[in-house]
Amino acid sequence: METYSDRNSLATTLRDRRQRLAQLLDAPVMLWSGQRSPRNFPANPFPFRASSHFLYFAGLPLENAAIYLKDGKLELFMDEAPPGSILWHGEMPKPEEIAGIIGADAAFPLSELPPRAPGAATIAVQDVITYLQQAQILNRRVAPANATEGIDRDLAIAIATLRLCHDGGALSELRQAAAVTVEAHKAGMRATKSAQLEAAVRGAMAEVIIAHNMMDAYGGIVTVHGEVLHNEQYHHLLQPGDLLLVDVGAETEMGWASDVTRTWPVTGKFSATQRDLYDVVLAAHDACIDKVRPGVEYGDIHLLAAATMTQGLVDLGILRGQVSDLVEMDAHALFFPHGIGHLLGLDVHDMEDLGDLAGYEDGRTRSDRFGWCYLRLNRPLQPGMLVTIEPGFYQVPAILQDSECRANYKDVVNWERLAQFSDVRGIRIEDDVLVTEQGSEVLTAALPTAAEAIAELVLSGGNLL
Amino acid sequence: METYSDRNSLATTLRDRRQRLAQLLDAPVMLWSGQRSPRNFPANPFPFRASSHFLYFAGLPLENAAIYLKDGKLELFMDEAPPGSILWHGEMPKPEEIAGIIGADAAFPLSELPPRAPGAATIAVQDVITYLQQAQILNRRVAPANATEGIDRDLAIAIATLRLCHDGGALSELRQAAAVTVEAHKAGMRATKSAQLEAAVRGAMAEVIIAHNMMDAYGGIVTVHGEVLHNEQYHHLLQPGDLLLVDVGAETEMGWASDVTRTWPVTGKFSATQRDLYDVVLAAHDACIDKVRPGVEYGDIHLLAAATMTQGLVDLGILRGQVSDLVEMDAHALFFPHGIGHLLGLDVHDMEDLGDLAGYEDGRTRSDRFGWCYLRLNRPLQPGMLVTIEPGFYQVPAILQDSECRANYKDVVNWERLAQFSDVRGIRIEDDVLVTEQGSEVLTAALPTAAEAIAELVLSGGNLL
Repeated sequence: METYSDRNSLATTLRDRRQRLAQLLDAPVMLWSGQRSPRNFPANPFPFRASSHFLYFAGLPLENAAIYLKDGKLELFMDEAPPGSILWHGEMPKPEEIAGIIGADAAFPLSELPPRAPGAATIAVQDVITYLQQAQILNRRVAPANATEGIDRDLAIAIATLRLCHDGGALSELRQAAAVTVEAHKAGMRATKSAQLEAAVRGAMAEVIIAHNMMDAYGGIVTVHGEVLHNEQYHHLLQPGDLLLVDVGAETEMGWASDVTRTWPVTGKFSATQRDLYDVVLAAHDACIDKVRPGVEYGDIHLLAAATMTQGLVDLGILRGQVSDLVEMDAHALFFPHGIGHLLGLDVHDMEDLGDLAGYEDGRTRSDRFGWCYLRLNRPLQPGMLVTIEPGFYQVPAILQDSECRANYKDVVNWERLAQFSDVRGIRIEDDVLVTEQGSEVLTAALPTAAEAIAELVLSGGNLL
Repeated sequence: METYSDRNSLATTLRDRRQRLAQLLDAPVMLWSGQRSPRNFPANPFPFRASSHFLYFAGLPLENAAIYLKDGKLELFMDEAPPGSILWHGEMPKPEEIAGIIGADAAFPLSELPPRAPGAATIAVQDVITYLQQAQILNRRVAPANATEGIDRDLAIAIATLRLCHDGGALSELRQAAAVTVEAHKAGMRATKSAQLEAAVRGAMAEVIIAHNMMDAYGGIVTVHGEVLHNEQYHHLLQPGDLLLVDVGAETEMGWASDVTRTWPVTGKFSATQRDLYDVVLAAHDACIDKVRPGVEYGDIHLLAAATMTQGLVDLGILRGQVSDLVEMDAHALFFPHGIGHLLGLDVHDMEDLGDLAGYEDGRTRSDRFGWCYLRLNRPLQPGMLVTIEPGFYQVPAILQDSECRANYKDVVNWERLAQFSDVRGIRIEDDVLVTEQGSEVLTAALPTAAEAIAELVLSGGNLL
């Protein structure tokens, strides 16, 4: 792992993080990394993914390990590899060596954890086996991460406070993830002309991510059916006239994510109607990014996306009325039913394991309004926050064919005009935007958004078949 | 999913399987598919992998479903997608539709399972949440799959009997997995000359697998440190003089696996010592494949691999003595510590979740002998069995530097001569071999094994960087 050679900076980053944690929380903290989940049999597990909270304070994806944080000190708990494992897995670094790399004060076997347990706060991990061990070792109930209680809730609040704003160590990883994601999208665009299936474009993108020793940060979306928001099928044929919606992001070895969406015509050529709607989405994307700066409410950015899209749809004759009235009645949500974006960090929806604790300012809760219920972030922006900006336009049959929906919005939608745009099922444009002291920086800016530039990249791919 | 269009053949295959099961077992059977395991938060899970036993009788990778088999009849239990899911996941086929495709007699919601539970046999799934549900619904203890008891053990034996020998439906899938795996290896060879990291070769292979809408059947090995048998790190630089050991296999959407290893020089050119040892491994590979036919004991094939490799090592002056004596004292295991192969099917080590129940003939148990303890299959071969043949030569420091080992074998190893082969850390050559009525068929025969042909493929890759 590359960070092994970079031990001073890793150890320094981790020390700073736990010292800041100690300022926010008196209780000692015990965090587990988790274990591999078996796939079809125990010796054939899914790839290991350490708990993000563990990664934040321990830096390395150590399997079946725990850390104990107290007063800014760090102790590492993990067992040495069993003697037979050297044949199958090679020589592993000893726990003491790893402790040195991450700047831990000491290393102990896992059997030494229970004496530290009294009074320790924790966050529930995702794998069930380790979750059961957490409760057993702490000798108390551990609530699921999205419903923390008592000192665990205090810990969750403190961790959310820290993880909301990224430090230099985090940004270095996040920039790497963004750079590889940009290259993957370019490869996907270039692969499209010769691809027959969605899967072929996905394969070309996976090659780039895997070649950089990274992996997918989430189940990628590579689909001609962009109207299905989390479409994870890749078997459709690419047909002339289709738009391909591609939402794929890389994750570094240390767990830091990127999250990018582009939408391009499979032939490289937008139809006039596709181009019109693409530019509506792009206008919202650009306006929202322009607005990102410290102190701005993320909810206001969502509102700006709604208003910008609504204006564009009015201009195209798809919606009728005053923009402010239309947004007030959630007419935009007919076509843009999700939120403008979310936090990004060690998780693609950062800290979503904690429910809305990280995403929503204390005292705020999710709206149940049609256009707002999927907004995952509702806080004033601060320097160091990394957010996605991802407006989209979709023709979702379950919304647009719903009789109640059609009745509610019958006066404001020009259904005949809308029908002329039937070659657009889904368009989304998403970038990763860092809030800086001065304003913002788009970490994924190297990937073009303009329709002409996208088309050029697609057309530059040879027809290899 | 392609099989959806091929419903007659799928339904027929599944009917035959459950009718044969009914001939072997009186008890009704309840099998669960399992659920996704969360990765870093619940909405970001690992890819779904249905339980292999479920897949065998239900054909499709249905999430959170169960089947009930009785007297050759099939009932499907799954819930309709909740109303809100259509926005995120699109329109899903209704349970009744799926029942039609797989030839089930009826479909019910999961809430209808408990009345069927009394007297039903089952096999424990891998994901813990579903495993707990199995015990709850059956209202009894369910032992882990590798330690089945009572009627569950009867079921495991019956399923092993069926799954040991592949039917036409299985073979069609296994051939697809093999064909894509062959293409992936060729792509890996061609990508090597321009690759800097192991990861880049892995990326080129993943592109092929993903482009065919398949996935890795197991955590692939792409390593210049072949002496670590299950090396899952990909960050090493490819250096002139290195051999790259690549063990990667594709799995079809329906869950059927391939498992192939090749070893090639990163420059395309074997050194004389590499070539000598490559040919020793290849001789064992070829001799073992020649021996595969119905009635032959798989253990005898392992013995043949040991003898052939030993003869080769004697010829090279690395071992000294009579081949039969050397094999008797497990001298081959110094360099070939694993077994000659294993069953292959829905799992890359087929049915390994059942422990050795499928791999070992009734009444046989694992040897604890050095050269035999990792042999995963010990049965007479039957038509329809698919096995791997995968001899290897490794210089494992943990074995060759072990003082007890060196003392035990001091008279039979020429350590000075061995030192001349220090540019070989690991070589393995693995193919997927089907036992036929007449003898055998290598499903992965389209991928060359001869050193010249391998070298040619590597050299045919352009130096793209």
